[in-house]
Amino acid sequence: MNTENTGKKDERNLYLKNEDLDVAVSKYLGILSSKTTHRKSRMQSVTEAQGWVTAEPVFGKISSPYYNASAMDGICVDAMNMIGVDERNPKTLIKGRDFNFVDTGDVINDPYNAVVMIEDVMIQNDEQVSINGPVALWQHVRPIGEDIVAGELIIPAYHRVRPIDLGALLAGGITSIEVMEKPSVGIIPTGTELVEAGEHMSIGKIIDSNTHMFAGLVKEYGGLPNRYPPVRDDYELIKKAITTAVTENDVVLISAGSSAGTEDYTRRLIEELGEVVIHGVAIKPGKPVVLGIIEGKPVIGIPGYPVSAYFVFEGFVKPVILEYNHQANAEGMTIKAILSKRLMSTLKYLEFVRMKCGRVNNVFVATPLDRGAGVTMSLVNADGILKIPKNVEGYEAGAVVELTLMRSPEEIENTLVSIGSHDVLMDVLANIIHKNRGMVNLSSAHVGSLGGIMAIKKGECHFAPIHLLDEETGIYNLPYLKRYLKEQDVVLIKGVKRTQGFIIPKGNPKKIKGIGDLTRKDVSLVNRQRGSGTRVLLDYLLKKNGIDAKDILGYTREMNTHMMVASAVKSGSGDVGVGVLSAANMMGLDFIPIGDEEYDFAILRDNLKDPRVQIFINVLKSQEFKDDLIQLGGYGFENPGEIINP
Amino acid sequence: MNTENTGKKDERNLYLKNEDLDVAVSKYLGILSSKTTHRKSRMQSVTEAQGWVTAEPVFGKISSPYYNASAMDGICVDAMNMIGVDERNPKTLIKGRDFNFVDTGDVINDPYNAVVMIEDVMIQNDEQVSINGPVALWQHVRPIGEDIVAGELIIPAYHRVRPIDLGALLAGGITSIEVMEKPSVGIIPTGTELVEAGEHMSIGKIIDSNTHMFAGLVKEYGGLPNRYPPVRDDYELIKKAITTAVTENDVVLISAGSSAGTEDYTRRLIEELGEVVIHGVAIKPGKPVVLGIIEGKPVIGIPGYPVSAYFVFEGFVKPVILEYNHQANAEGMTIKAILSKRLMSTLKYLEFVRMKCGRVNNVFVATPLDRGAGVTMSLVNADGILKIPKNVEGYEAGAVVELTLMRSPEEIENTLVSIGSHDVLMDVLANIIHKNRGMVNLSSAHVGSLGGIMAIKKGECHFAPIHLLDEETGIYNLPYLKRYLKEQDVVLIKGVKRTQGFIIPKGNPKKIKGIGDLTRKDVSLVNRQRGSGTRVLLDYLLKKNGIDAKDILGYTREMNTHMMVASAVKSGSGDVGVGVLSAANMMGLDFIPIGDEEYDFAILRDNLKDPRVQIFINVLKSQEFKDDLIQLGGYGFENPGEIINP
Repeated sequence: MNTENTGKKDERNLYLKNEDLDVAVSKYLGILSSKTTHRKSRMQSVTEAQGWVTAEPVFGKISSPYYNASAMDGICVDAMNMIGVDERNPKTLIKGRDFNFVDTGDVINDPYNAVVMIEDVMIQNDEQVSINGPVALWQHVRPIGEDIVAGELIIPAYHRVRPIDLGALLAGGITSIEVMEKPSVGIIPTGTELVEAGEHMSIGKIIDSNTHMFAGLVKEYGGLPNRYPPVRDDYELIKKAITTAVTENDVVLISAGSSAGTEDYTRRLIEELGEVVIHGVAIKPGKPVVLGIIEGKPVIGIPGYPVSAYFVFEGFVKPVILEYNHQANAEGMTIKAILSKRLMSTLKYLEFVRMKCGRVNNVFVATPLDRGAGVTMSLVNADGILKIPKNVEGYEAGAVVELTLMRSPEEIENTLVSIGSHDVLMDVLANIIHKNRGMVNLSSAHVGSLGGIMAIKKGECHFAPIHLLDEETGIYNLPYLKRYLKEQDVVLIKGVKRTQGFIIPKGNPKKIKGIGDLTRKDVSLVNRQRGSGTRVLLDYLLKKNGIDAKDILGYTREMNTHMMVASAVKSGSGDVGVGVLSAANMMGLDFIPIGDEEYDFAILRDNLKDPRVQIFINVLKSQEFKDDLIQLGGYGFENPGEIINP
Repeated sequence: MNTENTGKKDERNLYLKNEDLDVAVSKYLGILSSKTTHRKSRMQSVTEAQGWVTAEPVFGKISSPYYNASAMDGICVDAMNMIGVDERNPKTLIKGRDFNFVDTGDVINDPYNAVVMIEDVMIQNDEQVSINGPVALWQHVRPIGEDIVAGELIIPAYHRVRPIDLGALLAGGITSIEVMEKPSVGIIPTGTELVEAGEHMSIGKIIDSNTHMFAGLVKEYGGLPNRYPPVRDDYELIKKAITTAVTENDVVLISAGSSAGTEDYTRRLIEELGEVVIHGVAIKPGKPVVLGIIEGKPVIGIPGYPVSAYFVFEGFVKPVILEYNHQANAEGMTIKAILSKRLMSTLKYLEFVRMKCGRVNNVFVATPLDRGAGVTMSLVNADGILKIPKNVEGYEAGAVVELTLMRSPEEIENTLVSIGSHDVLMDVLANIIHKNRGMVNLSSAHVGSLGGIMAIKKGECHFAPIHLLDEETGIYNLPYLKRYLKEQDVVLIKGVKRTQGFIIPKGNPKKIKGIGDLTRKDVSLVNRQRGSGTRVLLDYLLKKNGIDAKDILGYTREMNTHMMVASAVKSGSGDVGVGVLSAANMMGLDFIPIGDEEYDFAILRDNLKDPRVQIFINVLKSQEFKDDLIQLGGYGFENPGEIINP
């Protein structure tokens, strides 16, 4: 706990404003450009210039080609001697006197001034040929400077050098060019709770990962990252770090810890050492950004939550770095997609929502990922970003929205979209598919089995992993297809049997024996979310045993995956969780089985023809898949990949 | 001249086939994958892993957050103690016994299991607060593993690591990962005519620039370039170089000289040392590619013309490198554009045409650039590539075509399109605009003044530089607008006066005094293309002087720019050229003036409002523009940038 925090809320963020993103960026860049002194340039060898930005226009030094060159394989001749030659008046030529053989690229010199293609030459012997057509002056001769004329522009100033530019520059006789120095970006991690990656981890500590992400993004956008060691939450220490970083760099980033205290330091320190231009922008996540200037240099305070940090970097640091080298801030590729579910947003902020996207039934369908600012994996797994403008309260399901892509359209085209129940085996499937079957990817959203069935109904996914027990018949899955998807032609791809049960700490300290123990006052449950098959199973068992959910401590504590349930038990914040054996095994926990269930995949029959689905089915049937699951434990196999008609 | 060439065409390219590009690529990759042995991997520090491709899936080692953490600033409490609290039954809490202050990110430990936001807390003093609402178990607490659960997948195998992945990997406790070794690509320049960049240049020599472009492209696509010194056209020397390169690399590229001889060596050598899979693909440029395998490694012979070399690299080497690291061969961004002129192609090849593209009157208009395989600058200047399929004989003007972009759509959006006459000053304008006016670019196509007027008529450009003398009135430009553009509301932006004349070698060795000397048998002219204002001027003067063009040697030798004319004179392949003084000055040549003319810009009145055009006009009015032209010499100024109504 932060000892400096006295709980007096009046001291917090007094100056927090709510500027619009565009306004904030142009205001900040405007003030910066009025204060920033001349940018540095340097000479760079052309062969090492790729990715650098020219400081001056580059003009050719020599012409290319450097001489009149044959554009064909053939013979070179003097066109003036060939006047009057045609089919009726062929002419015989003597080698060395009237012609010479030339290859493409050979020099054409006095007395020769034209080339006849070898196909139009009748060869009599090595020394003598004849031609029977007219020859124009300079025909089939590449003139000097056809490509580049000495003195002409090759590439302009402020141009980012590409491999094809290297070729043209060298051909134009240029061996070094003046380029803009890359801006050095000082990155200061702050926060008493930070530890460096690889250092010993303990409760209350956070691994500093954001500043390494910043370093990567700085490189990507053409800067040189210069990361400093973490500084603890001490006003004077942070002040010293900022002063040093401003002296040593062109741009300075202060990465806040996730506590409000450090953000506050940033604002106060920039105010003391320079000027705060903006504190607080109407974006979500990322609101508490601090945009400052010290000694004419941009100094930016970035919030600690990783997703906020990413959007603040993209929104503010990226344009600053690009502007430094006069590069345009390109928007990136976008696609239009159909929103699979209603998505509400606040009117107060421009919100960045991470989205999964796939092409299902020939339309792109987009589904929001976790919106928490702390969930880095929502960025890693995102296919695109949906920007919901300020003053827009959201979009209805079915709306056409525009996504800024985080992956190539080809990758999205090649993605199998699974929406439904979570099981550890989905990771196993994703890996085998991605690794062995070319360029196909599997993307899973975990919304529970019933959510998966709804996704099939709405055409949002290629298939839905489900495990739903019909209480009346005791049959898994098929009755649900008949009940909820009777208007669709839907089948089941057979998956696996898996063992569900109670996940408990190693050694079972609370001596839990079965479902009856859930109502004990000293036992706290970790549950799964409504709509998940595991929740359906638990509720079925509670009903069968006459237990009222209200009597269970933690019944309302819902997790979205088996691994999160196991993780909560492992950490001691719950005494018992419901989940699969494989998750307990992976976490090194004990397990009380409550039954086996069928984990299958619902799919529209039409989609079985999709070659990506065929790949998926082949993986289900593969020995590799079985071997991997046997290693995890808790699975049984009866013809996985088989198609079952309801 | 290549001494090995005896002119016996039967020896050449006996095995040249005409495979389709797609067929050739998949056949080659297929055979390669059946022969290539297991690819290497290595451990890489996460902080240095950006851009590398994972060899194995990466699973989290520790959970993130690592502990139950407060998601809000506020107080932590035991929810079990708060049962029954509401507005009518507020509860007073004592610090240290019932609650503690917490910041976002702080640890929530026994006995606390919920957080109340600071906004919902009534602070009585530092030691005592009260609340008046219900508290749910674990509310506002980020559970352990909310982001990453130990054991769960972070990134799959064969995933190219991005900055956001670095953040997630480090947060998941990963400090090093297994990545694919980047393929080492050996690059062998061959050709007796090659010199290294920076070495002394002489007639008959070519600077080896292609292999440096290859090195740049190899880096861009994730390989490690390994360029060898140039090898002259000697069978045994090239054989030795290939053998060494195959031993030392994963992929080998043999860059041919532009002569047919070296290409032939490549095929024969690969055949001797391994196997030629394909020789000859139905693409233009790039047909004579050789795709071979030696010791299970891809060995590719690339033709010497730079543009052919580029498309062969993109078509064959890129997929080989990407395949090595299991990366998909993304197509790149495309846009639809209107073709500005008829474009014919051969039925026998898939042709790659370099195109300029701009948004004029709200539609994208695409115009082909020089189609010669030797014109590197057509690649440097290209905005996109139009692929004309085999068996398609071309497209009519006005057809909607798809371009694969070479620049970002933003860059194309921000480009001013000029089509018309050439003058050295267009380079000057392009530079000032690009450098001083933000992100706006000027793109010029040189089709002559009359071509420019046609481009205005068809809406292909923003403006057209023209200098057209009306023979009857002696007035420049305005009469042409009235004659050819009477249906459009078109105006003239005033440009500059410039001096035209005869460009002659330094010292005037042939004692040329004026137009009368053009008919001398010992004088060879370098002319400009039909439709150019300079050609119109020359023809006007010839007519006035009663000279028949047929009597002029070289009258049909047409160049597209002033600089190419000057370059031809400089090289001695012509005795006199027509062009502007500035071009003669830049080449250090002598000059006989024949008259001053008006070089202005025709533009639709509507386009004057375009902010990009406003920037152009401001540059015309600037002192910087004048200063640059004064330095070139041969220009006069009378209100440049003024708008003249016809």
